[in-house]
Formats: sequence, structure tokens, C-alpha cells
Amino acid sequence: MKIERFLENPLVCPLDVPPLHEDHEVIGAFNAGVAQYKDEVLLFLRVAERPISRQRNIVKAPVIDLETNELEIVEFDKNDERYDFEDPRMIRLKDKLDSFIYLTSLSYIRVARSKDGHRFTVDDEALLYPNNKYQIFGIEDARCTQIEDTYYINFSSVSPVGVCDSLVSTKDFKIFKDMGNIFAPENKDVLIFPEKINEQYYALHRPSLKSIGNYDIWIASSPDLQSWGNHKHLIGIRPSKWDSGRVGGGLVPIKTQEGWLVIYHGATPENRYCMGAALLDLDDPSKLIARSEHPIMEPEEEYEKNGFFGDVVFGCGGLVDGDRLTMYYGVADTSMAGCTMSISEILKQVKEG
Amino acid sequence: MKIERFLENPLVCPLDVPPLHEDHEVIGAFNAGVAQYKDEVLLFLRVAERPISRQRNIVKAPVIDLETNELEIVEFDKNDERYDFEDPRMIRLKDKLDSFIYLTSLSYIRVARSKDGHRFTVDDEALLYPNNKYQIFGIEDARCTQIEDTYYINFSSVSPVGVCDSLVSTKDFKIFKDMGNIFAPENKDVLIFPEKINEQYYALHRPSLKSIGNYDIWIASSPDLQSWGNHKHLIGIRPSKWDSGRVGGGLVPIKTQEGWLVIYHGATPENRYCMGAALLDLDDPSKLIARSEHPIMEPEEEYEKNGFFGDVVFGCGGLVDGDRLTMYYGVADTSMAGCTMSISEILKQVKEG
Repeated sequence: MKIERFLENPLVCPLDVPPLHEDHEVIGAFNAGVAQYKDEVLLFLRVAERPISRQRNIVKAPVIDLETNELEIVEFDKNDERYDFEDPRMIRLKDKLDSFIYLTSLSYIRVARSKDGHRFTVDDEALLYPNNKYQIFGIEDARCTQIEDTYYINFSSVSPVGVCDSLVSTKDFKIFKDMGNIFAPENKDVLIFPEKINEQYYALHRPSLKSIGNYDIWIASSPDLQSWGNHKHLIGIRPSKWDSGRVGGGLVPIKTQEGWLVIYHGATPENRYCMGAALLDLDDPSKLIARSEHPIMEPEEEYEKNGFFGDVVFGCGGLVDGDRLTMYYGVADTSMAGCTMSISEILKQVKEG
Repeated sequence: MKIERFLENPLVCPLDVPPLHEDHEVIGAFNAGVAQYKDEVLLFLRVAERPISRQRNIVKAPVIDLETNELEIVEFDKNDERYDFEDPRMIRLKDKLDSFIYLTSLSYIRVARSKDGHRFTVDDEALLYPNNKYQIFGIEDARCTQIEDTYYINFSSVSPVGVCDSLVSTKDFKIFKDMGNIFAPENKDVLIFPEKINEQYYALHRPSLKSIGNYDIWIASSPDLQSWGNHKHLIGIRPSKWDSGRVGGGLVPIKTQEGWLVIYHGATPENRYCMGAALLDLDDPSKLIARSEHPIMEPEEEYEKNGFFGDVVFGCGGLVDGDRLTMYYGVADTSMAGCTMSISEILKQVKEG
């Protein structure tokens, strides 16, 4: 696979984004959904702001106070033996390391815009900011699906009651309709298909399971984009491969003559994130036709290998122009980058298995 | 709360149920959904059959082979140090005790029927038997909601890809319409309300969460009973109370003048299961009005305290006649029992808090 990474990479860095909160630093501007709107490319950045700590032994956790709409900062002492601080993204109980109790940064969605798709400027304000009890730890990893003249933006809502997937719609990125939590917790990486198929909408989703099962991609259908059912298991992890730890939808599925092209992320148990591809039946996307044996893209560049959480390429959106796919992707849980690929080459690799 | 337990309790025992599988024993006939159909009370028993093991050190796990429709038996050696056998219901990896890899019995749904509601006879065949990849470890804990002339039966589908909630509908308990997996994994204890409220169907559900959150009851709405959205957190566990470990919907919500009466189960972290009650707004059941401070029913009788998995009362269905609620409930993960309560007394206890 020939990947042409943009020479300007990374396109948006934390340093390009002034924090919205006093005494905070932006540590991430990454994992952006993408839309073409009028003459601009819009990136729906996940901006992560971390409370500045001036004491080495203090770890801070920001939480939205819904009554004041301000941030409450909860402080932890690194020497407190009840807690584990090894993963810089979260605070965990030492005896429950597969779950977290607080995040160390607050994420929200903010727009970076560009006329040429390469040089971006970041808006002064948030586009979407946590505003209900399901979001008090932040909102993350937006994806945007355009259906006719409406843009549907979905994202993970994180709070003490769980991680849901929520949906808003807009025609102008000014007035939004709140469509609620469309997937119950625990779920992430929801990708809505860009058109109805046999009278139904479809979406990929990725439940996180407790008692049994893996971090696999499922598919669901809906009459109205708000209510989802007919859940089917679609793309599982593969032992001892690059996607043996977890998989999750990446870009909005792309309609091709050969089927729906799904570009997804896969990670090892050690959290090395690559992008892979799969092909679904055009008339029934719950049927998997083929899947790439190897990644179509791996973390190779310095900005992909090093950062807040290194060795990550994480595509959340793309733009299609004929055979050319421009993918915008988060790198190292820190910044945004861009690249182009040939769709027919991806399809060739998928079909070769 | 005055509970009148049936003198005939337990009403159905494993010994009343001949196994459907050779070399198996029925170890449970419990957690039944309930319907009134023509002149009979139907209990949709969860029948659990366990492969008989003649060697003390061998633990067997039954799995449906979808191609032959027969049971494949996987054997484990109790001395194998990779596995934990302490919970008799499942086989777990020693280093992942919060999840399981196999169940030690296969559950399916079978009818017990009665003209007087006290003396039951068990059908010779299964009503619902695992028949797809989401069910190869079994189907469990049916609930039945009657809406006009149609009966909707939902249940947990268990397989290596996760625990979903699935729905079938029928008018005659002979011809069934498969409505698929209505809640993505991991989810259990789904209770569909018996009528539309403001043009929407509603259901309680109980996701099991991995990264953050508790075993709490959520509520969702649907235009068609098949697709569900607008997920909201409704009834959480309460630290240091009888429902501090987990809660989950029990009976189909009961419409009263004061609101929707929800009778739910709550358990301690040590798995002592009681039944409690809550009241939801009639016009918007996502609004919790009140909740009983104490259980309305606790395991007290010998048949509730001792069995395959003791100290459990677990109501999955009831019948209402004026102020009188007849609740049928699983006891000790083994048998079925029945009791009657006064709805106005339950409401009184709920409102007292």
C-alpha cells in the first residue's frame, strides 16, 4: 500500500490550540471526525485539556459541574497506595486495573478548518461541549456522517455511569439537534453509514464487554438514526495478528462498486494502533466479504510513534475524490495528520486477504 | 410488607423436568417469565441442563453445535491450574475472574402450565431453544410482555461473542417471529413496558460495564420494539444497602394510578438477591419518582436460601388482579415459587422511601 503522508504533518498540534480553561494545558488535538462543508474541510478535533499541576506528587482530574458549568478539579496524591497512575490518561484503583475512576483530562469537540485541506486554523470556541450527566468526564472521538444536507456527529460520552455513544445533527454547524444516547454503555467507535440500505440505516459499533467476548466490531440497523437494533457481530479481533487486542470502526464506510469499504483501527494488547480494511456486502452490510490480512497503515513517522500515548494512527474520517481517499487521522493521542491513498489499491489488498 | 407465599412452594423443581439431552441432568427450572394465555398461566422456565460427570475431577461444558444442532461437550480437568472452578455456574480463567469462558450448563426456555396458578405441569419439549451463533452457550431468564394480542418474549442470549438480549413475538406460542438482538452486548434484564407512552415503547435494561460504571438499570425508548435508543440512566446501585452490588429489572412494569411500578432485583456484592420496588412517572418513565429503602421481599424460606446458588429470590413475571399481584419467582437458581402481595401496600412502602 502506497500511503502519501502530507508534507505538512502534523497538521494540528496541541500548541496550535489555546486552552479554553484557565490553568489548563492542551495536551491533545486529535482523533477528529471530518466533513466537507461549503468550501472548507472541517476537522472535529477532540481537544483534551489537562489541569496544570505544579506539584509533582499531585495528579488532577477535571470534572464538569453541570450546575455552574465550570470545571471541578479533583486532586490525587501519587503516593496514595489505593490508586494507580501508570496510564497517563486515567486514574485507576490498584485492585481494578481494567477500569478507571477518573480521567486526567477533559475532552470536548472543537473545529479546525481549512480551504486547501492542508493548512488548518482552529476555532476559538468549542463546537460541542459536555452538557449533561453522561458527559461530565468529557466527550471524545467524534465521527461525522453526511446524509443529504444534514450532518450527523456522534461521539463517546464519558461519565461515572458509563461510556455511551451520543448523536447530534446539524445543517449549518450552528444549530444542533440533540438525538440523545444512541448506544447504551459500554460502547465506542460508532460509524453511521452515509445512506439507507433497503430502507434501513446502518451503523458499526464496538461494545466493550465484561463477562465474555472481545473488543469486536458489531453492526446494527435503525429506522430513524436514533433507535438501533438487529445487533450482529461483524469483525472480530484476530489472535496473534496486529489487531489481536481490539478493533473499532474508523472512517464512515465508503460505498464502492465492490461493497462497503470499512477502514477500521486494530490494536495489539500492547496498544499499538494500526489501520486495516474490510469489505461488506452492498445490499446487506452485516455480511463480511473480505478483510485485509495486514494493516493498510502502521505508525512509522516520528509524530506517529511518539507523543502522549505513542505508536498510534487512528483515523476517524476521510474525504473521497474519485479513487483518492484523503484520510485525516489522530497520531499518538496528540495531534492530527493527513494522508492520501488509492481506494482501488486498498480494495486490492483487502481482496488478497 | 405482607407476602403470602404459596403453600405449594416450590411450584416447579428440577426433578419435575425430564432432561431433553441424554446423559444430562436438569439442575435448574427457574427465573421464569409469566403470561396469562386463554385459561392457563404459562411460566417460561429457564431450564438448565448439566452434562453428567462420572469423574470427580472432570468439569463439563455444553455448547450447541449449530451444524448438527447437538451438544458438544468440552471437558476440563479440575487440576488444570489455568482454570478456576469455584463458581459452580461457570469456568473461568484464573487470571480473569471477573469473566467466564464457558458455562457448566445449557439453558433454554420451556413452558410450565397451570389452570389454577398453583399446580403446574411441564411441557415435554422446549418452547425456545438456542438456534443461532449468539445463543450457543444458552438462552436465559425470559420475560414476557403482552401488548394487545401479541406476546413478546425477550431473554439473554449467551455465546463467546457476548451476552445480548433477544426478542421473539407470538400470538399463539406456536408460531414465533424472530426480532433479533434488540440490545447489544453486554446487557441483561430487559423489561418491555406493556403499552406505548407518548407514541413510544419503553424498556428497562441493565448493561454490564467494563471500564467505568456499575450494574445499574437504564431505560430506552423505541418506535417499533426492535430498535432502541434514547438511553438514560435510571436506577443505580446504593452503597452499603441490600442493592449495593447490582440491580436489574424484574417484572414487567405495572401501571398504577401513582405511576409505573417497577419491581426489580437487587443484590449485594456477596450475591444475596432480594426484590425491591420503584415508581416511575406515568407520562415519562425515565423520571424516577420514588424507590423503596428496604427490600419488599428477601430470601427467607429454606427453598429460597438453599439450592444450586442460594439466597436468591428473583422475580421475572407476575399477574395482576385488582390490587393483588401474584409474583412467580426463581429461588436459589434452582426452582420456581409463587407469592401474592398487595400493590397498594408496595406503593405505600415505595413512597415512604
